[in-house]
Amino acid sequence: MVEDKFLSYNAMDKLMRKAGALRVSDDAKEALAVALERKALDIAQVAKKMAEHAGRRTVTKKDIELALNQ
Amino acid sequence: MVEDKFLSYNAMDKLMRKAGALRVSDDAKEALAVALERKALDIAQVAKKMAEHAGRRTVTKKDIELALNQ
Repeated sequence: MVEDKFLSYNAMDKLMRKAGALRVSDDAKEALAVALERKALDIAQVAKKMAEHAGRRTVTKKDIELALNQ
Repeated sequence: MVEDKFLSYNAMDKLMRKAGALRVSDDAKEALAVALERKALDIAQVAKKMAEHAGRRTVTKKDIELALNQ
C-alpha cells in the first residue's frame, strides 16, 4: 500500500464483494482506494469552507451534506 | 457506527484533517463515510459489469478505471 493511504485494501475488497464481485485484483483495490480518497478530499475541502463560512472550527454533518450538493 | 460500514471513523477523520479541518464531529465522519460507500458501490457495480463483459471473473484496475469514466 502506498503512503498516505487511509482506505485499506480490506475495506475496498469488502465493498467490491458487496457489489457482487467474485474476485478483485490488488491493483483494482488500489485504484478504487485512490479514487475514493480523491473524492473524499474534494468533499472535505468544500465542507471545511462551509464550516468556516458559518463561523465554526468544527466540521459538522450539515457541512458535509452541503458539500455533497455542490 | 452503523451496520455494514466498511470505512472507519478514524479513516474519515484523517481524510478530513488532511483537507485542513481542525475539528470534525462524529456525525460529519458518519456522513462522509456513507457518501463514500455509496460512491464506492456505484463504481464497483459498474466495474463488475465491465469485467463480466470482458469475460473475466476477476475485477481489475482497468475495470475500475473504465467505471470511473462512466
